[in-house]
Amino acid sequence: MERDLFVSVLAAVVGDAHVLTDPGMTGGYETDFTRRFGGPARAVVRPGSPEEVAAVVAACAEAGVPIVPQGGNTGLVGGGVPRNREVVLSLRRLASVERVDPVAQQVTAGAGVTLAALQRAVRSERLDFGVDFAARDAATVGGMIATNAGGERVLRYGTMRACAAGVEAVLADGSVISQLAGLPKDNTGYDLTGLLVGNEGTLGVVTRARLRLVPLLPARATALVALPSLASAVELLASLRSLRSLEMAEFMLPAGLSLVCRHTGLPAPFAAPYGAYVLVECADSTSPLDALLSVLSSVPDALVAVDAADRQRLWTYREAHTEAISAAGVAVKLDVAVPLGALPAFVEDLEGLVAGRAVMYLFGHLAEGNVHVNLLAAESPSELSEAVLRRVAAVGGSISAEHGVGAAKARWLGLSRSPASLAAMRAIKSALDPSGLLNPGVLLAD
Amino acid sequence: MERDLFVSVLAAVVGDAHVLTDPGMTGGYETDFTRRFGGPARAVVRPGSPEEVAAVVAACAEAGVPIVPQGGNTGLVGGGVPRNREVVLSLRRLASVERVDPVAQQVTAGAGVTLAALQRAVRSERLDFGVDFAARDAATVGGMIATNAGGERVLRYGTMRACAAGVEAVLADGSVISQLAGLPKDNTGYDLTGLLVGNEGTLGVVTRARLRLVPLLPARATALVALPSLASAVELLASLRSLRSLEMAEFMLPAGLSLVCRHTGLPAPFAAPYGAYVLVECADSTSPLDALLSVLSSVPDALVAVDAADRQRLWTYREAHTEAISAAGVAVKLDVAVPLGALPAFVEDLEGLVAGRAVMYLFGHLAEGNVHVNLLAAESPSELSEAVLRRVAAVGGSISAEHGVGAAKARWLGLSRSPASLAAMRAIKSALDPSGLLNPGVLLAD
Repeated sequence: MERDLFVSVLAAVVGDAHVLTDPGMTGGYETDFTRRFGGPARAVVRPGSPEEVAAVVAACAEAGVPIVPQGGNTGLVGGGVPRNREVVLSLRRLASVERVDPVAQQVTAGAGVTLAALQRAVRSERLDFGVDFAARDAATVGGMIATNAGGERVLRYGTMRACAAGVEAVLADGSVISQLAGLPKDNTGYDLTGLLVGNEGTLGVVTRARLRLVPLLPARATALVALPSLASAVELLASLRSLRSLEMAEFMLPAGLSLVCRHTGLPAPFAAPYGAYVLVECADSTSPLDALLSVLSSVPDALVAVDAADRQRLWTYREAHTEAISAAGVAVKLDVAVPLGALPAFVEDLEGLVAGRAVMYLFGHLAEGNVHVNLLAAESPSELSEAVLRRVAAVGGSISAEHGVGAAKARWLGLSRSPASLAAMRAIKSALDPSGLLNPGVLLAD
Repeated sequence: MERDLFVSVLAAVVGDAHVLTDPGMTGGYETDFTRRFGGPARAVVRPGSPEEVAAVVAACAEAGVPIVPQGGNTGLVGGGVPRNREVVLSLRRLASVERVDPVAQQVTAGAGVTLAALQRAVRSERLDFGVDFAARDAATVGGMIATNAGGERVLRYGTMRACAAGVEAVLADGSVISQLAGLPKDNTGYDLTGLLVGNEGTLGVVTRARLRLVPLLPARATALVALPSLASAVELLASLRSLRSLEMAEFMLPAGLSLVCRHTGLPAPFAAPYGAYVLVECADSTSPLDALLSVLSSVPDALVAVDAADRQRLWTYREAHTEAISAAGVAVKLDVAVPLGALPAFVEDLEGLVAGRAVMYLFGHLAEGNVHVNLLAAESPSELSEAVLRRVAAVGGSISAEHGVGAAKARWLGLSRSPASLAAMRAIKSALDPSGLLNPGVLLAD
């Protein structure tokens, strides 16, 4: 095979060893976690510094070569893998965490730092990072910024948009914008950092981020709460919110919990079945147990954990959902959010919609009305998916709560965004990437 | 005087009574609070609904007439008053607060709702709004969004950007974008809400906002703390941050405190003078006093207040700064922020720079390194201002922490923003307002 001339241009920037074209080497960068998305890359380029990222992007701009930026490749919507022989720009080598600033309670981290590595670095300083989720060993800071990652602790700390004090990024022309001072007050123009959070690699390539840290809270209390209905779960949340130690509130439903018990062999948590379950966790510097118990005094039933083993056992009921569903079949997965007040009626409506057309398991993050919809044995998956997303849109919800739009949901974006919003987004995209070289086909489909 | 034909077009939209052209009526809209900025308006138009705002903007777009959006007109940088016979678009009639949503802990408010009216509406539901500052009786939600307002409680609740869950806004072509569902997780594209927060009226006209609320915390404890130096104040802050009830930390310096005592007749708070003073306030559902005292156990001296009268007395030492400085002369006022770790050295450097060229009083919001610089009797105010702003930029600070850029600081924006950032900002401005009709001359000077 004759060597692609442009590959030599890239090699001149980052060194031969960091431009991969051998299919044996590029495979891991070309297919995503779901194995539903991906394709061959023209090359995988692995710059080792922000300056090299800028030089790679400038070279691509000069040659008119499209780029797919990639972090830990843990995305679920095809937003970080090639679709049409693009250059994959892997940021994983930007893996350094700078010195933690204990006064500002911030740290600057490279785009390639994994969430787990970030946690290790800041926890040694008795600080923590607000966003956390299961893919922490692979997901990177750059990818988390680009996708506005969420997870379990959003009700306390917000999404990445709330946790990012600034970014350094390479724009489509190779120019670099940098706001790493981490100033909590800085009213000198448009919020370019906020615009890059959630841009899905379509406006710029994040190289470093200034991250807000939170105190590390060692004392935890966890409870699995049984409730008659999802409506009463929503009511419980209103009371739980009076606890400023509240960190997580995950909801489950009877069908999913039964499936988990069958799959894991765990006993049913309660003697009788209930209409809904909420896994609550509080964290504080001193034990939040008494405060939690006081709020739970009127619930029908609850299991409470204080030590790590008990906590893990309760968490398994929630965490094993994904695995138990996978074991039951290939699920169509949708990640949606509805206004919290509308959640109980939405779920009831969904059950009616899906009845007889698929087996459905729902669970999710209660405080954000964030429902992970899993559809098994659906006869017309695409049609049913669209029907679900239309119900979401009808109640003012979001067709993508935390996973993003990517290539997977681009055609449905109009369900959540009005023509005027889409036009504004396209205008911004054209303004910052006039040749459309950054992640073409993602977010804004042609 | 013959009537301007375009005025009739506006009157057809909002009614004759709401298009003001008589100088006796327009005066209050044409000059800002500082009396340093302003000029005659072509007309002042006061739409009564978001639909009327859209129709006014569409009419201006059609006729190529520039617009200055205006809220409570409490700005300090000339960002909300006419400069060149623009139409002033006053949003004050959009003054309705919708029903508080206690489940989501959010409320939707019109752009013309004052901060004080918002506080009254949400406090009756035992909730509160995070952002607070002295101009609450006049400042409006729309203006607070447009300027990313900050204030005293930013260390706890963030600026408006953190407190706004979504906005409805009219873009330059009269189209309306609306994100009022308030979803905490919604990854369906670019953060147009965040982009409009702090846009200073140059990208769109905010008509309504979905605001995040916080629990109303009735129990407060306040302390005025004496410290040997600003460096020790920064150290104290690190300890104070372990209190999750911490709500405010304002710093003062000996010169300012002496001026306040002379002006108000208040006694000096401590028998001996100290190098720096911090006014700390904590708020919680139960008394935060013991927790506050435990952190203050090692400070040289402190006055502690628990009842409202004591609190007010301590607050006067801080709040009377503005009045005492005004009484001493006409001050050049700069509102800057530096990285917190750099604050003590920055202030020392500033004292050296200003010595012999002006009398300087500094005070501000400690946690954000936000310094309000007041220069009295400066010989060359503009030159000295620029010298101060250059020192700010040299330590990676912001030339405008909370007041914004407006017309006043547009020429200095390049001190805080790089050419690449400015180019990105200009590209976004051109994309969303290609004819430059929204607040020309503000933020991005020609």
